[in-house]
Amino acid sequence: MSRTAIYPGSFDPVTFGHIDVIKRATRIFDKIIVAVAEDANKKALFTLDERRDMMIDVTQGMENVSVETFNGLVIDFAHKRNINVLVRGLRMTSDFDYELQMALTNRRLAQDIETVFLMPSEGYSFLSSSLIKQSASLGADVSTFVPSVIEARLKDKLNS
Amino acid sequence: MSRTAIYPGSFDPVTFGHIDVIKRATRIFDKIIVAVAEDANKKALFTLDERRDMMIDVTQGMENVSVETFNGLVIDFAHKRNINVLVRGLRMTSDFDYELQMALTNRRLAQDIETVFLMPSEGYSFLSSSLIKQSASLGADVSTFVPSVIEARLKDKLNS
Amino acid sequence: MSRTAIYPGSFDPVTFGHIDVIKRATRIFDKIIVAVAEDANKKALFTLDERRDMMIDVTQGMENVSVETFNGLVIDFAHKRNINVLVRGLRMTSDFDYELQMALTNRRLAQDIETVFLMPSEGYSFLSSSLIKQSASLGADVSTFVPSVIEARLKDKLNS
Amino acid sequence: MSRTAIYPGSFDPVTFGHIDVIKRATRIFDKIIVAVAEDANKKALFTLDERRDMMIDVTQGMENVSVETFNGLVIDFAHKRNINVLVRGLRMTSDFDYELQMALTNRRLAQDIETVFLMPSEGYSFLSSSLIKQSASLGADVSTFVPSVIEARLKDKLNS
Amino acid sequence: MSRTAIYPGSFDPVTFGHIDVIKRATRIFDKIIVAVAEDANKKALFTLDERRDMMIDVTQGMENVSVETFNGLVIDFAHKRNINVLVRGLRMTSDFDYELQMALTNRRLAQDIETVFLMPSEGYSFLSSSLIKQSASLGADVSTFVPSVIEARLKDKLNS
Amino acid sequence: MSRTAIYPGSFDPVTFGHIDVIKRATRIFDKIIVAVAEDANKKALFTLDERRDMMIDVTQGMENVSVETFNGLVIDFAHKRNINVLVRGLRMTSDFDYELQMALTNRRLAQDIETVFLMPSEGYSFLSSSLIKQSASLGADVSTFVPSVIEARLKDKLNS
Repeated sequence: MSRTAIYPGSFDPVTFGHIDVIKRATRIFDKIIVAVAEDANKKALFTLDERRDMMIDVTQGMENVSVETFNGLVIDFAHKRNINVLVRGLRMTSDFDYELQMALTNRRLAQDIETVFLMPSEGYSFLSSSLIKQSASLGADVSTFVPSVIEARLKDKLNS
Repeated sequence: MSRTAIYPGSFDPVTFGHIDVIKRATRIFDKIIVAVAEDANKKALFTLDERRDMMIDVTQGMENVSVETFNGLVIDFAHKRNINVLVRGLRMTSDFDYELQMALTNRRLAQDIETVFLMPSEGYSFLSSSLIKQSASLGADVSTFVPSVIEARLKDKLNS
Repeated sequence: MSRTAIYPGSFDPVTFGHIDVIKRATRIFDKIIVAVAEDANKKALFTLDERRDMMIDVTQGMENVSVETFNGLVIDFAHKRNINVLVRGLRMTSDFDYELQMALTNRRLAQDIETVFLMPSEGYSFLSSSLIKQSASLGADVSTFVPSVIEARLKDKLNS
Repeated sequence: MSRTAIYPGSFDPVTFGHIDVIKRATRIFDKIIVAVAEDANKKALFTLDERRDMMIDVTQGMENVSVETFNGLVIDFAHKRNINVLVRGLRMTSDFDYELQMALTNRRLAQDIETVFLMPSEGYSFLSSSLIKQSASLGADVSTFVPSVIEARLKDKLNS
Repeated sequence: MSRTAIYPGSFDPVTFGHIDVIKRATRIFDKIIVAVAEDANKKALFTLDERRDMMIDVTQGMENVSVETFNGLVIDFAHKRNINVLVRGLRMTSDFDYELQMALTNRRLAQDIETVFLMPSEGYSFLSSSLIKQSASLGADVSTFVPSVIEARLKDKLNS
Repeated sequence: MSRTAIYPGSFDPVTFGHIDVIKRATRIFDKIIVAVAEDANKKALFTLDERRDMMIDVTQGMENVSVETFNGLVIDFAHKRNINVLVRGLRMTSDFDYELQMALTNRRLAQDIETVFLMPSEGYSFLSSSLIKQSASLGADVSTFVPSVIEARLKDKLNS
């Protein structure tokens, strides 16, 4: 039986931490669909298409990883794809309570879907897209947080 | 001696978790005043009147529960009513630090008023009004999180 | 209707933090029964009788406070007394998860009994009986943590 | 490709929470090996054989679940079985820091093995074997925490 | 060797908690530079100049304390001053995870700079500028949270 | 003015995490005294002399670091040395509440002494002496957690 899992997120932008989670997930599941979420609140720095394209860029060459976008509920996306596993990274400094709350809410909405939590490498466990965006906007060299292609896009976006 | 406690909140909208806390509070105190707070930051989805009316709806038939609105500080509201106990729910996934911070701030402002924390049923302990609003706006069936009358109001509000 | 609450604990020994919780509880309930628990694991420094006597000492003069001992489950003790409220202190540095776990376990064992959490004054919020015993055994002056009568008893016990 | 995961623990004794995690794991992986750990510190209430037998009892009829015992490191056990996934339950009131610490230690010892965290149902999320043993020893009816066959064994053990 | 440390923050406005941290820092380091951060997101209640002036007001008379403003990254500010220590307060109810995340991000950006955490007095450990602003805007007497000169400025600002 | 800080602990045994904290502390203070605590409860694996000798071994060549032993309270040790700063590592997965509790207890006992917290490198932030001892006793290769000289001592001790 083939096992596919969905890794949902806004990825605004994708970081080395996300990439680490994706790699770990590919060792556990047969196929990973990275599901880039539409930004209902219009607060993202990058557009949905930009975020999807950046994710495609950085996952190129990874076998068994595909990238899609979705709007609405992630559980509805999962149901349409007939997939019953969601993957989430559990950073040491993450808002653990929020992650549990979201996972329990999703479970109540869809009893057939499980959320599994993976730990990124401790070297990436404190990365957050928002802190990276904030640092970059203040002039930081964020090349240790994101791939160089993402760093270039961040600079372009922040200077535009 | 009759014991009255105030259960303050924004209740935007009221959830099964809030209702569970109210029921538990009525077994501990003689009278519960649910105090719906004005929205100073104008960020609530529902108006103060709507939030009060929904609370009245879902507490109908509960003995010893009344619903009021207030603006300003909850401790001033308590002083005016001559009440010295505030009730707060302590969700397993709540921002516990924030709850303590608010309670300690209130205590410093009014030494005569105590905050008591109650635990909602673990089945409701992860509910949050904001996550419910977000889920509903994405098309989720939130009937396991809020009473049907609230669900209907949420749909109306989000579609208007 | 008269409201009585039980404040259970091992009180080995009673600290200013416990006393603060008792005082706050007397302002919320009509009567407080401090219930000193038998030490099933034989790990307490003081005997059950000593712990009860110390508690009686430090609560002398507090109206509406009585001290009792119990063995077995606190919910059985509560049922026998026909009391449905337990009080627990929620220290800022307490093991909050353990407190919730115990309260939820008690609730499952006895649905009719509620646990309410009170916050001790922030000046006492970090006190722990075990840290105080450890400090005293290393020669610390613990007079800012426990009443002088308790301090004397600690010295006697540790030197015996 | 067939996916097997190991669910290690002391299971002293197995609770409804553990069983819930096993069931969820079987929906994610093709085969689950429940690995009962030898008790290096001789602190367990039940012997290794008793703990294995109880686990076999309560997982009877579950397809794709087998029960084994191991001593030494769980990663060595995993290597011998050629399995690269460990499953752990993440209770809302668990010592989350301890779980992360253990998982990171295991990862450093064996980079090829991943720990995935699953959430038990919120109704079981506060169960702990030690609190259950303690409650049972004080006379509690623990039939809502463990299967009846385990409850009977607990009574026998505690009365012997 | 002379030891200087930077205490960065937005100080919108400065509270007794910040002042407590500054005093403690002066006992550990030879010189403290309070570095008031420009508000990149334009969300502060007070302007950068107002926040600096208030800080100068309340630190008058403290030896070895100077006040500066900065924009951009705090690590760039530190590098320019040739200083390798940042000080942060660690409130009991602070968002500890956020503090760690920011400190680790700063360390990755500048390996030569260390963040040291100090605890404010427990009586100030729950103070937050945002909760104080919110309380003041609702009419609270915040004289136990901020110096009187700051209280006056808050009133002026909120009424303007 | 010369600044000396004390880094107290049981160091049973010293890990790469402790060494990392010592190195960071030497960049902040002029002199670091590593203070190895006597084991009042006789629970340590290594004797006080062994723990001191191992610490001397691994800090050889570090300028401005000395190693001493103490019994009793660390604040009494600090007073005798006329030192007013204690250093503690703050691991991401540490029992943060316990650290705060101990620091606040120490502060109450000695108002003139400050505890400052440093973060070890995230690669060491999950190390714990007890987990390392447990892993080693089960046969783990702990060479990534402790220096080789310590690893050898651990093996000797566990096999004796």
